[in-house]
Amino acid sequence: MNKTSPFSAFTEKTRPALREELSRVVARAAEGGSRFLQEMITYQLGWTGENAGPKAEGKQIRPLLVLLATEAAGGEWQAALPAAAAVELIHNFSLIHDDIEDQGDLRRGRPTVWKNWGEAQAINTGDAMFALANLSLVNLEKTVSNEITLKASRLFHKTCLHLTQGQHLDIDFESHSAITLEEYWEMVGGKTAGLLAFSLEVGALCASVPAEIQNCYRDFGFNLGLAFQAQDDILGIWGNQEQIGKSNTSDLVTGKKTLPVVYGLEQEKEFFKRWSAGPITANEAAEMSGILEEEGGLAYTQKTASHLTDLALSALDNAQPQGEAGDALRELTGRLLKRQT
Amino acid sequence: MNKTSPFSAFTEKTRPALREELSRVVARAAEGGSRFLQEMITYQLGWTGENAGPKAEGKQIRPLLVLLATEAAGGEWQAALPAAAAVELIHNFSLIHDDIEDQGDLRRGRPTVWKNWGEAQAINTGDAMFALANLSLVNLEKTVSNEITLKASRLFHKTCLHLTQGQHLDIDFESHSAITLEEYWEMVGGKTAGLLAFSLEVGALCASVPAEIQNCYRDFGFNLGLAFQAQDDILGIWGNQEQIGKSNTSDLVTGKKTLPVVYGLEQEKEFFKRWSAGPITANEAAEMSGILEEEGGLAYTQKTASHLTDLALSALDNAQPQGEAGDALRELTGRLLKRQT
Repeated sequence: MNKTSPFSAFTEKTRPALREELSRVVARAAEGGSRFLQEMITYQLGWTGENAGPKAEGKQIRPLLVLLATEAAGGEWQAALPAAAAVELIHNFSLIHDDIEDQGDLRRGRPTVWKNWGEAQAINTGDAMFALANLSLVNLEKTVSNEITLKASRLFHKTCLHLTQGQHLDIDFESHSAITLEEYWEMVGGKTAGLLAFSLEVGALCASVPAEIQNCYRDFGFNLGLAFQAQDDILGIWGNQEQIGKSNTSDLVTGKKTLPVVYGLEQEKEFFKRWSAGPITANEAAEMSGILEEEGGLAYTQKTASHLTDLALSALDNAQPQGEAGDALRELTGRLLKRQT
Repeated sequence: MNKTSPFSAFTEKTRPALREELSRVVARAAEGGSRFLQEMITYQLGWTGENAGPKAEGKQIRPLLVLLATEAAGGEWQAALPAAAAVELIHNFSLIHDDIEDQGDLRRGRPTVWKNWGEAQAINTGDAMFALANLSLVNLEKTVSNEITLKASRLFHKTCLHLTQGQHLDIDFESHSAITLEEYWEMVGGKTAGLLAFSLEVGALCASVPAEIQNCYRDFGFNLGLAFQAQDDILGIWGNQEQIGKSNTSDLVTGKKTLPVVYGLEQEKEFFKRWSAGPITANEAAEMSGILEEEGGLAYTQKTASHLTDLALSALDNAQPQGEAGDALRELTGRLLKRQT
């Protein structure tokens, strides 16, 4: 991406302040002789430990969306820093716990927290990050009114509940041979779209915009999340066509119930028969992705992603984002939702 | 206890409303097709599942302390119900996660949540209860001012962080052969006393008392928690003298670093030598408890518990609790801190 693009410019402008805000909150974990609690948290955030750095830090899309929404809605992004830090902390809290729940070994190219420090400390470190996220959010009272701080708090706690509901479904679905499309959307709404919706809504809220504009930002974030997930689901099966023959990372092999799979199972044809017969091997991945494509799984998911992208863009238009931050939001959306073939 | 005692009367008066408040919050877990998320939460609360009922529900001391403090401080206990529910939810959140971290099989006489539903769902159910506790707390805005709601929120999030710091130390201590008294108090301050301190402080806060009275309630709660833990540590070793010869539940056998043990290790005498040589068997428990008593572990812990009890009672006096709720607070304190011999 061009270094002087609106999104790059905004990122460069805000990142040091975001890091400082996060550092101040995270430093509280070290109080009271808690030995290496802070060390585990900064490791998860990609700041410390082996191979610390930009890759380990992740893209930090969510906090940037908070700050972008505030400025695009006519506010000062600095006012939203406590919310941006809260969103980054809660995202990383959920990654620590998800990695334990899925027994994932790697996260952003490094061993997961539970792999390094054991499950007991990892569960508790996630809990500490949850508490830090809550603490960060109430710091909004220093930058916005008490009313807005309380409204943001309530929205945040609802979002966190929604996150755990989505994760509940995701874990539950592993033991079901098939799920419905409705269940799929409930799960994605909680796990992915909810936090993006909150990020944009709280950003707009910090700019004190009217409720209808705030809702447009939220709808934008929610549909952005759903569209992004649908595209990610396509990549999980058809992402590396040249390698697919020997791929053992295909979602078909790991058995993930992504959108194309859920659609394919609903057709009850060839794909359904083979899926129901037991785990798909790496050698079968190419043939199975072909069958799923023939039965409409790829086209359906592409159409859905395209429709959701339209909804997201239309909500963004209705939000009437202003200035360079508005341009940056459009640019980021274009990058995240680049249509897949 | 006498059925017509002030504490019994207060409990009978408030319990239905507390249950209703909790039920309303917990019902939100069932939204969005989250199948059995609510079922796991109500199981943990002792409301559903095999052997549901008073024993499975636990004593609910913490939420009662919230409501008692509000009324004793001259407020209406109903105003503090959202905080009381939050405290009960966060306490149960911590029990679910502690049970996974300690691999505990039983809680209040029933299989733990992770034993019934697996670790992945149990971790996530704890997270859901954390979110519900936060949501419950912001409901204070319906009963008290925005300023008090925000102050209570900040205190609550600090308390939750403190809770995870205490738990961090507790897990960490398992891999150390000895800890210092300072480390012991840090751990107990976070794990036990912090939430009791919050319960009393938030109760007083909901009655809008001046800061100095609020601090007295907090100090009362904190010292009550420390004193209670010291007494519990005595019971863990000398609680059942008649059975101790064959006890395999003695803290000496499980290797818990309780106050008498930490004191005994600091003496570096006979007890220290045997402890350092490896795990103590059930057959040795009686002899070892005798050695620890001879080396001053019991007397030191009794003296400490007595001193902390005095501090708690003195803080309660300074708080000047009023009316029947004041009597009930004193009665409950007397019950919890009945001096052990």
